Amino acid sequence: MSDRGRAPGAPGPTVADESEAAILARILPLLPAAPAATIGPGDDAAVVAAVDGRFVVTTDLMVHGPDFRLAWSTPWELGWKAVATNLSDVAAMGARPTALVLALAVTPDMPVASLEEFAGGVSEAVAALSPGCGVVGGDLSVSETFTIAVTAFGDLEGRAPVLRSGARVGDVVAVSGVLGEAAAALQLLFRDGVDEDGVPDRALTAALRKRHGEMLAAQFAPRPPVGDGVLAARAGATSMLDLSDGLARDAARIAAASGVGIAFDGATLGRDVALALRGGEDHSLLATFPATAELPGGFRAVGRVVDPATGALTCDGVVVDPVGWDPYVGWDGGRG
Amino acid sequence: MSDRGRAPGAPGPTVADESEAAILARILPLLPAAPAATIGPGDDAAVVAAVDGRFVVTTDLMVHGPDFRLAWSTPWELGWKAVATNLSDVAAMGARPTALVLALAVTPDMPVASLEEFAGGVSEAVAALSPGCGVVGGDLSVSETFTIAVTAFGDLEGRAPVLRSGARVGDVVAVSGVLGEAAAALQLLFRDGVDEDGVPDRALTAALRKRHGEMLAAQFAPRPPVGDGVLAARAGATSMLDLSDGLARDAARIAAASGVGIAFDGATLGRDVALALRGGEDHSLLATFPATAELPGGFRAVGRVVDPATGALTCDGVVVDPVGWDPYVGWDGGRG
Repeated sequence: MSDRGRAPGAPGPTVADESEAAILARILPLLPAAPAATIGPGDDAAVVAAVDGRFVVTTDLMVHGPDFRLAWSTPWELGWKAVATNLSDVAAMGARPTALVLALAVTPDMPVASLEEFAGGVSEAVAALSPGCGVVGGDLSVSETFTIAVTAFGDLEGRAPVLRSGARVGDVVAVSGVLGEAAAALQLLFRDGVDEDGVPDRALTAALRKRHGEMLAAQFAPRPPVGDGVLAARAGATSMLDLSDGLARDAARIAAASGVGIAFDGATLGRDVALALRGGEDHSLLATFPATAELPGGFRAVGRVVDPATGALTCDGVVVDPVGWDPYVGWDGGRG
Repeated sequence: MSDRGRAPGAPGPTVADESEAAILARILPLLPAAPAATIGPGDDAAVVAAVDGRFVVTTDLMVHGPDFRLAWSTPWELGWKAVATNLSDVAAMGARPTALVLALAVTPDMPVASLEEFAGGVSEAVAALSPGCGVVGGDLSVSETFTIAVTAFGDLEGRAPVLRSGARVGDVVAVSGVLGEAAAALQLLFRDGVDEDGVPDRALTAALRKRHGEMLAAQFAPRPPVGDGVLAARAGATSMLDLSDGLARDAARIAAASGVGIAFDGATLGRDVALALRGGEDHSLLATFPATAELPGGFRAVGRVVDPATGALTCDGVVVDPVGWDPYVGWDGGRG
């Protein structure tokens, strides 16, 4: 974890100074191997076991500018977050993550040491969130814009996938993981992590880390409850998704896909109910369970599935607008 | 195919004008569905059949600047090429392509119509090169740099994967597909498709298309012999790879992985032997077969696997430098 808070831009050779082969020779040993890979990196493609005759697959991009700022996040944190957000999507299907592929487009001036830190974040995220998963392949290119594309795979172990469309009136609505914390951190960063011109600032962020380290970690290195995805499926979850766009917007997706309404109990949503409902990027799991089910793992009840005639989305009886809170929406081209 | 030669920048709304949901609603119906998908796009992840208990996976980035120029390639061609290059990697393992995921980072000023053309290229490439494959999921983001990340999957249908490491002394070396044509097109473009300052020029490229359409197609919309990958595996290929970096460099990879030498017969390499050996991006298949095997599909013999003591790589007895030809190497930051 020693590189976790280290600023990017460490001295040493840059990507432009070294061949792709030389860079990969430094990075690949830092990445976790996947036990599920029968053929790993090094050929035209990898071969991965899919024991029950199916595999779960999800892909996500993180782009410098709209998705992260280099003055705020360290390379270690970017590696961690790219893995965590994809593992959470696999978990939301009720699957156990088995493998990842990782395609990076990096700027020519990026220090190779920063790529090593990135790989360290990938490795530690896998170890912490889903041990037994690993990296089976990837690609490395240069670009004007640092871009991270992760594709993640999972094993349903014979179970049916848990979709967004299975919620039934009377089910319990439950969440595992934090609510609103990633958004609170981003609010803080946009307020106190920028200079007078609104540009993300590394020194100001370093100061914020000292006072609000845990809060910022929810944004920079989220810890989705990956293992709870399988537990939810085993406990009979009728629907599930990864909370990436805020509880209100994501719950509205389950409501629409399932043809139901969802009624939240505000008292279960923490001190700042508005932020819990609208804050994005928590990567917690939202699921519905039969009323008789015992909630597994870290799940706690936050509401009920109701007849849609009573309103698609309410909290304590008040209609909730299914809008997420995301300051990157309508990206203005800023990077920093 | 009507959009194939159409210039990008068609009028109409741009990516910044529309919501992600509205754009996806226009794009998704244009993409081919995959029969292997038991759960397709629309949930946190897709579920894809892997009948023999394994899946082949490969990922590749295409980045505006180092990998393509918008004054040269149309959106239709970029969609085609992104698919073709990834299908070729699946084929090179001896697998049948089953599914793709597609992550796009597009500039806010890109017309949504260009994204529709891109989807058309994806769809027609799948139909032409590997019918039965399809798109099972994806991601869409904004970026300063148009970036295309494709991850492709394949089914080995119970066969062992064909690796780079299985070539044996005495094997026949064979190629299916063109040699040097993609590089010849790129030479032409860097000579006659740029303005006085060396910047890629759309009008000059349109003129080149009229005179050299077929030649340019090898670069803009390559047609790798995807089906020949399975045929090679069935015929007992001992090693195989996708020719992306030139015959010399890629043959050297088989030689190194297998611990053998490779001796090319120059008379089999066409009129421009140097370009055939050094030209990249052909996405043809290079394979080795037992001397007794009947060469399948489009494969023709181009040399022999020899004892490495006689030289790792030779052509007509002359040592070949295992260097590819790629004018993008040492990318100067140019885009156009």
